[in-house]
Amino acid sequence: MSLNVGLIRVVTLEDEELLNLHGRLLEDRFGLQVESKCIEDQPEGIHDEATERQAIDKIVSLAEDFEGQSKDLIFISCAADPALEEARKEVKIPVIGAGSSCASIAMAVGSRVGVIGITQTAPVAMKKILRDSFVAYLRPEGVNNTLDLLVEKNRKNVIDAAYKLKDLGCDVIALGCTGMTTIGIADHIRRQVDIPVVDPLIASAMIISHIGHIY
Amino acid sequence: MSLNVGLIRVVTLEDEELLNLHGRLLEDRFGLQVESKCIEDQPEGIHDEATERQAIDKIVSLAEDFEGQSKDLIFISCAADPALEEARKEVKIPVIGAGSSCASIAMAVGSRVGVIGITQTAPVAMKKILRDSFVAYLRPEGVNNTLDLLVEKNRKNVIDAAYKLKDLGCDVIALGCTGMTTIGIADHIRRQVDIPVVDPLIASAMIISHIGHIY
Repeated sequence: MSLNVGLIRVVTLEDEELLNLHGRLLEDRFGLQVESKCIEDQPEGIHDEATERQAIDKIVSLAEDFEGQSKDLIFISCAADPALEEARKEVKIPVIGAGSSCASIAMAVGSRVGVIGITQTAPVAMKKILRDSFVAYLRPEGVNNTLDLLVEKNRKNVIDAAYKLKDLGCDVIALGCTGMTTIGIADHIRRQVDIPVVDPLIASAMIISHIGHIY
Repeated sequence: MSLNVGLIRVVTLEDEELLNLHGRLLEDRFGLQVESKCIEDQPEGIHDEATERQAIDKIVSLAEDFEGQSKDLIFISCAADPALEEARKEVKIPVIGAGSSCASIAMAVGSRVGVIGITQTAPVAMKKILRDSFVAYLRPEGVNNTLDLLVEKNRKNVIDAAYKLKDLGCDVIALGCTGMTTIGIADHIRRQVDIPVVDPLIASAMIISHIGHIY
């Protein structure tokens, strides 16, 4: 019997297809059953401390909704793990965050972790786990959002960033944004640079799909 | 197609059934294909720094054997992760350790981790990853080896230790010895104490079975 996952998107998405993008991937590749909900009135999502504070209560409230619907587990699909601690306090079912999952899996496969993302700095939620194993964070040139990753020149810059991290002695790369999953950038890096790459959405699915072994 | 795993036991085991105990569990519960080998001339395994040093070259040599046999991946089935770094330097295929896997998965499901084990102190390999999230280590009274865990009175002491860790504010328990897997102590704790429990062998399997998403 497949797990019933309540997935929280931390950006307001009117388009059903966009809303379900992360969930669809978990369903297709990991056999999970996923319902996605998004927070209201934040079409630009979380991009600084103020917008993160704004989102906390909304995320916790969605988590409570999902618990009321008898979901097996809640997944906050953002590498910044917004409201992860808060949601864990309010609901009794497991709550998994993409950032801590990604950092954790990276720690299991390597000991010198480089992070590539599209934000100005690496997600605090990931650095908190990586600690001394964190080597460096790079935002590839020209990349400020996931759409930029579709531009050929920018994809080359991603590869350059990965090579730079490898040169710095990194033995694994962790991706610092769930938006990087859906465009397949992990495979692209892996193939070209020959280094293991941990994707936040995939790392979460690795944990979620076996959560019954822990709880 | 199932993954071909080379599993290293860090204790000399003449008995085929004992040698294959960990591998059988990974095969039966995770559909992996496992061949187990053990280090020579250490029937008491690794129990201090001297015996760990003695084992390093043997473990690396077994890893090289497995690589020569075209295994997909090597798994060092011990929560102390002996020779993990050394083996990773010598072979090109992924090397996974039970200690780092267990600590990593615990970090993904909680933020205040208690460790229960049968050794005098928590495995350094686990504490190195848990860092600030490490709350306490307990060896249950009367428990000095895995056989002790089969004694009813000692199993009660394990439960007492788990309650103690829960009282200390732990939100997850990580088991600090792969010998604790085969006797089902994780389920026993989970059922009685109502706290998530991460088992080193199971945590490793969670990562190994999806390793193709990373490498």
